[in-house]
Amino acid sequence: FDEKLPNVGTTIFSVMSQLAVEHQAVNLGQGFPDFEPPEVLRDALSRAMADRKNQYAPAIGVAALREQIALKTERLYGHKPNPDSDVTVTSGATEALFCAIAALVHAEDEVIFFDPAYDSYEPAIELQGAKSIRIPLQSPEFSIDWQRVRDAITSKTRLIIINSPHNPSGAVLSRSVLDALADIVRDTGIHILSDEVYEHIVFDGAEHQSVLRHPELAARSIVVSSFGKTFHCTGWKVGYTVAPKFLSAQIRKVHQYLTFSTFAPAQWAFAEALQNNPELYLELPTFYGKRRDYFRSLLKGSRFKLLDVRGAYFQLADYSAIKDIDDVTFSDWLVRESGVAAIPLSPFYQSPPDARLIRFCFAKSDATLIAAAERLCSL
Amino acid sequence: FDEKLPNVGTTIFSVMSQLAVEHQAVNLGQGFPDFEPPEVLRDALSRAMADRKNQYAPAIGVAALREQIALKTERLYGHKPNPDSDVTVTSGATEALFCAIAALVHAEDEVIFFDPAYDSYEPAIELQGAKSIRIPLQSPEFSIDWQRVRDAITSKTRLIIINSPHNPSGAVLSRSVLDALADIVRDTGIHILSDEVYEHIVFDGAEHQSVLRHPELAARSIVVSSFGKTFHCTGWKVGYTVAPKFLSAQIRKVHQYLTFSTFAPAQWAFAEALQNNPELYLELPTFYGKRRDYFRSLLKGSRFKLLDVRGAYFQLADYSAIKDIDDVTFSDWLVRESGVAAIPLSPFYQSPPDARLIRFCFAKSDATLIAAAERLCSL
Ligand SMILES: CSCCC(=O)C(=O)O
Ligand SMILES: CSCCC(=O)C(=O)O
Repeated sequence: FDEKLPNVGTTIFSVMSQLAVEHQAVNLGQGFPDFEPPEVLRDALSRAMADRKNQYAPAIGVAALREQIALKTERLYGHKPNPDSDVTVTSGATEALFCAIAALVHAEDEVIFFDPAYDSYEPAIELQGAKSIRIPLQSPEFSIDWQRVRDAITSKTRLIIINSPHNPSGAVLSRSVLDALADIVRDTGIHILSDEVYEHIVFDGAEHQSVLRHPELAARSIVVSSFGKTFHCTGWKVGYTVAPKFLSAQIRKVHQYLTFSTFAPAQWAFAEALQNNPELYLELPTFYGKRRDYFRSLLKGSRFKLLDVRGAYFQLADYSAIKDIDDVTFSDWLVRESGVAAIPLSPFYQSPPDARLIRFCFAKSDATLIAAAERLCSL
Repeated sequence: FDEKLPNVGTTIFSVMSQLAVEHQAVNLGQGFPDFEPPEVLRDALSRAMADRKNQYAPAIGVAALREQIALKTERLYGHKPNPDSDVTVTSGATEALFCAIAALVHAEDEVIFFDPAYDSYEPAIELQGAKSIRIPLQSPEFSIDWQRVRDAITSKTRLIIINSPHNPSGAVLSRSVLDALADIVRDTGIHILSDEVYEHIVFDGAEHQSVLRHPELAARSIVVSSFGKTFHCTGWKVGYTVAPKFLSAQIRKVHQYLTFSTFAPAQWAFAEALQNNPELYLELPTFYGKRRDYFRSLLKGSRFKLLDVRGAYFQLADYSAIKDIDDVTFSDWLVRESGVAAIPLSPFYQSPPDARLIRFCFAKSDATLIAAAERLCSL
């Protein structure tokens, strides 16, 4: 059978969640919280259903939600997108990423992004008949080597994908990165796809450096975010893009034939929640910062070596003191034998480095983290 | 700007719905009911949210829903798909169609389908770098000329897309079609993509001829359907594919990077509704048959000539006695001057024929149909 994606299997997130269920393991693998969306949000969704919001939403998204997204963007990053032309609601950030790539990347083009990388970028690029140019982030802080980016650019480079706060490492790009990026793409036709789904989860007083803070970048970037991480409802699958009109127009062309529109009642619910409590997400750094600190304190007695976490809700851990085996084998052993699901790092890489790292999601209740830590400390 | 889809604008459904709002017109354009999803279904969704079903559903869909889809398929068409390997839940039928095309169609391939056709097929094929081979359906009954299909097949033909009940014409394929199709694809590597979203809406005692009734076709087909048309909730965007394991595996590879998973609480709600009332949809032919008959009776006094409707919830109408202008111009005039939104037929065609036809959606309450008919009868 002549496969379109011969090198792709089932995503590691599905594989590990499935194993977690089978082995009744504590699931710190796939990134989802064990917190619940606010009751006011669930009530607003139920009310939207009762209020006859059950037929197709506009393909670009419910106007009230696009307006709230534009206002939030302006408040946070000083850039006000036009809600009618620049904001597009999608069925999750994954769809937003796919639409942006499908809309902009032509066959034979090159797309630059950084290893380790979220696993959906590469197959989306491959489906366009384009080429992924993957540049390793630098140890120990998962930072970008700008000279390598400069060297990688060719006349075929269409897009650079960045991701901050970074999954899986939790690295957070600094302000100087925006200037470096602007310098590199100035006078080229290269666009930036900026995956900012963890925008509200940055720790220790750091500021999220959205590309939208930088007018020159804002004029050529597609920013992707979502509500799943902000409102504890990863299963609701409502995301969005912010991009200048000429790029949004391309994304919308694809989006309307990919999913057409997104679950309507949730759009009304998010619009209402953002209007009534526009800074709901300001509590997230403290909330998740405490989760991070608590999880790290619980693992103090373990033989895992914990890397620094500056954003997102993932903890990288070096297990080399426990076993000298590769990360996929270690994760498989861990879920089967120790009852804890984690995510190995190699699926995020084109050429996995020789590190011994796995990723834990700490977006979990005390009870969950304690149950996991008990098992992990016994190793 | 180097566009991926240079020939694509905003879908006609969005354009007409937008104009309907602007001109406060009665909207018989975009296909959605003005009926509401059953209260038990909305309650089940609210309960699923309260019951902590708010994080990622499995990428392939909630198991209980896949099981219900498999049972329904067996009851209706005598073919029981394996819910674990053959059924995949998607974010609406549009995503299902896109996934099937993206998963199976390679650059330079050819895909055969029939004009008039739903507007998402062509851009999805174009994005694969493949070629659409569009064969006109035959007047007056929108039937397939099998000799033309045979003549169109080449070594590059990868897929044939069929759609019954047919949007926009309401034509319903007969049993003999399945044999004709099987004869044509036998001993080839051609797959069938069967768009059956109106499967439960067939009139006058006719039977929907799913390709799943034909074991030879079932072994090489992807069937696409959705719950939006069945449960009066087109805005909920839950669809699915039924396909043999080897094809489902390909679709799932793409789906997991396109949207990853679908709004979880609705999946639990549909699973519960189908379990408690497994034949809910059996009332639809009578329900929509009455809508059709009522709308047609209301238009008796008009100058529109109504074509026969055998399935789906659309009425084609010939307006040539009213104006001798093309259908796009007529629809635009109709929504602006007469306050009724309809859909012109030419966007469904590669080369629109010289007909004077528009499409009305009759999935509407008495009050809506009366308001529209008053305006339409005055023309
Ligand atoms: C879409 S499943 C993966 C969720 C996630 O972002 C992660 O675990 O990295
Ligand atoms: C997805 S919007 C179009 C809905 C529909 O199927 C139609 O009107 O034909």
